[in-house]
Amino acid sequence: MNTITEQCRAAFESTFSMRTISTTIKNQALTLMAEAVWEKRRFIIEENQRDLDQGQANDIGAALLDRLKLDDARIKDIAASFLSIRDLKDPVGEVVSGWRQPNGIDIRQVRVPFGAIAMIYEARPNVTADAIALAIKSGNAVVLRGSSTAEFSNRALSAVLSEAAYAAGVPKQAIQLLDDLSREGIHTLITQRAYLSLVIPRGGSGLIQYVVQHATVPSIETGIGNCHVYIDVHAQIEKAIAIAVNSKTHRPSVCNSCETLLIHADIAAQVLPELARQLIEKKVEIRGCNRTMHYIPEARAAVDLDWATEYLDLILAIKIVDSVADAIQHIRQYGSGHSEAIVTEHIPSEQAFISGIDAACVLVNASTRFVDGGEFGFGAEIGISTQKLHARGPFALKALTTTQYVVIGNGQIR
Amino acid sequence: MNTITEQCRAAFESTFSMRTISTTIKNQALTLMAEAVWEKRRFIIEENQRDLDQGQANDIGAALLDRLKLDDARIKDIAASFLSIRDLKDPVGEVVSGWRQPNGIDIRQVRVPFGAIAMIYEARPNVTADAIALAIKSGNAVVLRGSSTAEFSNRALSAVLSEAAYAAGVPKQAIQLLDDLSREGIHTLITQRAYLSLVIPRGGSGLIQYVVQHATVPSIETGIGNCHVYIDVHAQIEKAIAIAVNSKTHRPSVCNSCETLLIHADIAAQVLPELARQLIEKKVEIRGCNRTMHYIPEARAAVDLDWATEYLDLILAIKIVDSVADAIQHIRQYGSGHSEAIVTEHIPSEQAFISGIDAACVLVNASTRFVDGGEFGFGAEIGISTQKLHARGPFALKALTTTQYVVIGNGQIR
Repeated sequence: MNTITEQCRAAFESTFSMRTISTTIKNQALTLMAEAVWEKRRFIIEENQRDLDQGQANDIGAALLDRLKLDDARIKDIAASFLSIRDLKDPVGEVVSGWRQPNGIDIRQVRVPFGAIAMIYEARPNVTADAIALAIKSGNAVVLRGSSTAEFSNRALSAVLSEAAYAAGVPKQAIQLLDDLSREGIHTLITQRAYLSLVIPRGGSGLIQYVVQHATVPSIETGIGNCHVYIDVHAQIEKAIAIAVNSKTHRPSVCNSCETLLIHADIAAQVLPELARQLIEKKVEIRGCNRTMHYIPEARAAVDLDWATEYLDLILAIKIVDSVADAIQHIRQYGSGHSEAIVTEHIPSEQAFISGIDAACVLVNASTRFVDGGEFGFGAEIGISTQKLHARGPFALKALTTTQYVVIGNGQIR
Repeated sequence: MNTITEQCRAAFESTFSMRTISTTIKNQALTLMAEAVWEKRRFIIEENQRDLDQGQANDIGAALLDRLKLDDARIKDIAASFLSIRDLKDPVGEVVSGWRQPNGIDIRQVRVPFGAIAMIYEARPNVTADAIALAIKSGNAVVLRGSSTAEFSNRALSAVLSEAAYAAGVPKQAIQLLDDLSREGIHTLITQRAYLSLVIPRGGSGLIQYVVQHATVPSIETGIGNCHVYIDVHAQIEKAIAIAVNSKTHRPSVCNSCETLLIHADIAAQVLPELARQLIEKKVEIRGCNRTMHYIPEARAAVDLDWATEYLDLILAIKIVDSVADAIQHIRQYGSGHSEAIVTEHIPSEQAFISGIDAACVLVNASTRFVDGGEFGFGAEIGISTQKLHARGPFALKALTTTQYVVIGNGQIR
């Protein structure tokens, strides 16, 4: 048996005690974890420095180095997030539904932990901390497969957090950081159906597609976001410009930022020149359809690939359409089912858009940047699911649980 | 493009109109389908006869021939099931949750159809009828891959039902019965991620395992049931015997029947002789552990494989255990996570069992045979899920829907 299978089995074996661990113990673990991560920050930052040195030597680039870096402020944020997860309502034990059948049998659908879940993620070491905290609060054992880029940081965090959780009564086996970080190891991990109930990939689309293609363990796909903002002919112009600029520029590197703007032909002349001015001021490169070029001479001509691209950058494709139906048609063709926004003051346009768009989130008169677990009030987002099974859209703690039917009779037979 | 991909694409293209089809139209379709299937029963029964002739020629066996057969009574049942599905509440449009964020944004989580779903199933042609009815009521397009054994029956049913549904306003493309019934065709079908949102295999464990291993489309596993009844030392003896006999013999060929009986050592002498008498009277073959043999001389000695076997037959394995903890341990080792029952009058035993068992259903003092969509009051069961994602335990219409977030602002940006 290889080490990955062994670690998954160890996690699985702890699931039976994790199922029944009390909220008091889980919350105590999170408190102790918050204290420990702060008290041992020197050690964690030293280990993080080894990753940073390695990263610099391997020339991984400034952006990745920044995401990798841990300092006092970031460790304080990690500690704070433990306390906010502690303060979330424990999802385990919730009676989701319950009823009595005519024969007198009582049926209750009760929320229970999944069991052992795996997370596969890329460079940011705070995901390690997050995943451990969420797993503990939801009563799951967790198998973590981080990036080799963050190997020392992840080990340090996992060691500090496991010890703190153990002091509160969480079994050591419940937190497994994989030692084997080989590429083949991912395949081994995502096929451990005997031990794992769920795998969640968090990272780039290459990783996610690999998991979706090869996992036999059920997975939640946190997919790409080729998100659109459609400015309807009945839009209020200032709102439209503000929402378009914010959706593109507030944080262009994330999945809920806007990649293509669609705009009704009859309002283009009133919106595009001022919108372009504001976008260009914020250093956004515009790629426009033929008609757009007429209003924005600075734009580059868009090619078909532009409509399908998640730039994750200060680039915006703009296309003029002739109706809300055309906008919906374009989004059906190119959208990734993540988040789609309409700006309009007109109820029929709103209704057509909401019923016509098949995406995790449809927004009306709001920036696509609101599609986020925090902005939804979930406390600690795990990701934004673009699949339709189990969880769709921003998902958090509750998505790490399943339900069990409890059927209580007094001797009934059929 | 092969025909399977084409048929999946055709189904997908209809999903946009299926999303918004009214409950009135869906219910009208179900009414017309009930009428049509009865009016055209001669044609359906004639086509079914071709399958039966073929089956007889291929010597498929009496049991399979019986499952394949359609007659007036069975067609009446099909028509009745359309009307009962019609009378279920439409799950689409339900606001599952909704709240207002501090910034004034309103968030609603609304139930919507999946889109296009595929069902892969074996001989019984009534599954074709069921799947079409459930798909229509839940607003989904459906791609059906039945068994070649039932090819003529499925074609006849699908033609009659599509025509009736079309008369009510359901697009023709929304119901696709695959022409290509090759084995490789299954692989093509379960990897149509561009067009399908869900695949549900209904059939033997070979089919289900194949789908789980190879599907890239998300699937719901309707797994095997190696179900246990544990008779606790605190059981009421008559209840225990009745539940054990019923769980085994009421319908041994289905997944919720009991395969292994566990019994506490200290009550074995009071229960086993009478239980064995009743089981043997019902022609059940008993395979017992060493200690069981002492009480039931007619039993064969069980081997390790017996504990792991889903007999689906009049065979029962019996093992004597020394505590509820031992019973739980045995079930953890051999159970398939389907349904597990305890018979006891003692609250601590009940609590230990419920919290210790990780299965879709845990029953207390009731036959395992109650784990069924109909017995749960769901109206039309699709299957019993043994996975933890999305649906667990008996699932029905609602599991064929997902949710979409609708976010309504009035110009908010971040």
